[in-house]
Amino acid sequence: MKEKLRAHIENLIPLTDAEFLHILPHFSFEKYNKNDFLIQEGEHVTNCYLVVSGLLKLVYDDKNGKQHIISFAMEDWWESDFSAYFSQKRAKMSLQCIENTVVFSLSFENYKKLSAEFPKMKQFFLEKSNSGHIASQNRILSFLTSSAKERYDQLLKQYPLLFQRVPRTLLASYLGVSRETLSRLSSQ
Amino acid sequence: MKEKLRAHIENLIPLTDAEFLHILPHFSFEKYNKNDFLIQEGEHVTNCYLVVSGLLKLVYDDKNGKQHIISFAMEDWWESDFSAYFSQKRAKMSLQCIENTVVFSLSFENYKKLSAEFPKMKQFFLEKSNSGHIASQNRILSFLTSSAKERYDQLLKQYPLLFQRVPRTLLASYLGVSRETLSRLSSQ
Repeated sequence: MKEKLRAHIENLIPLTDAEFLHILPHFSFEKYNKNDFLIQEGEHVTNCYLVVSGLLKLVYDDKNGKQHIISFAMEDWWESDFSAYFSQKRAKMSLQCIENTVVFSLSFENYKKLSAEFPKMKQFFLEKSNSGHIASQNRILSFLTSSAKERYDQLLKQYPLLFQRVPRTLLASYLGVSRETLSRLSSQ
Repeated sequence: MKEKLRAHIENLIPLTDAEFLHILPHFSFEKYNKNDFLIQEGEHVTNCYLVVSGLLKLVYDDKNGKQHIISFAMEDWWESDFSAYFSQKRAKMSLQCIENTVVFSLSFENYKKLSAEFPKMKQFFLEKSNSGHIASQNRILSFLTSSAKERYDQLLKQYPLLFQRVPRTLLASYLGVSRETLSRLSSQ
């Protein structure tokens, strides 16, 4: 499994064997079952997670008990309630397994240590953060400019695998439409 | 003016006089008039901008000619078409002055140089990028969970100054509502 972590980092930043051996112990390897929570709303958020296999949903439960999907995370994606992680506050969102899921987890303490001690890891985190920022900006753009049908088509084109793996109810919540609207869109 | 740049960086990362003197020439000081474009859709994006004074809008013009506001940027905010900036591609969005505006501009080349040569600046950019990512995640959350009236109230509470400075038509576009809906919201 550690080779998957190495390949993931080396996608952006080449590492020597010695460097990777030094970096590895900062991550912890964890297995979760379907429906397990990695983060529960109200808890202190100490970790962010790199998905090795499986599928997660980041959700927000509003005051009327309705669940909203902020994002999905599958293989090679990082996920957390980043606002709570970086400010070391309590979670506003929950992170839960849609499938049995294997992750590397990185504590905020180790994130800071790696950033401070390894310029290469700081560079890795900087590039990942920039990508996350860009992905979020694109999602805002799609909310402002696209119809539900267009958002559905974009998602299908960008992440065809998600459509096979994610229950319809969750897809509808991610797109911000009702289950009925989603059925209509997918039959069009 | 350079003291404003120094204060802005030192909000996150303390610098010695020598360090700041070395960093400063990487930025260029620029003045724009109301309605000037800093970035125009279709151009290569070479710079991102720190607003010293004034107000910018980041906009997307859809295929029907409708303008959507992705974000505003006022004093102490960074703005660009970040997707195009980091990938050195052509702009999908435009960045335009709502008021006469003074900025520090940072080319992508100098961004990479500063990141590579100054661990402190890499740390600065990392923290800024994390904040940008968090702000975008919160905006997604508000699109999913809040009514137009709630989004209006959140914006008014968080950025009361924007309400005085931004024309109503642009506020409506930012909130994703019509000008008429905005009038109704603001009279409630």
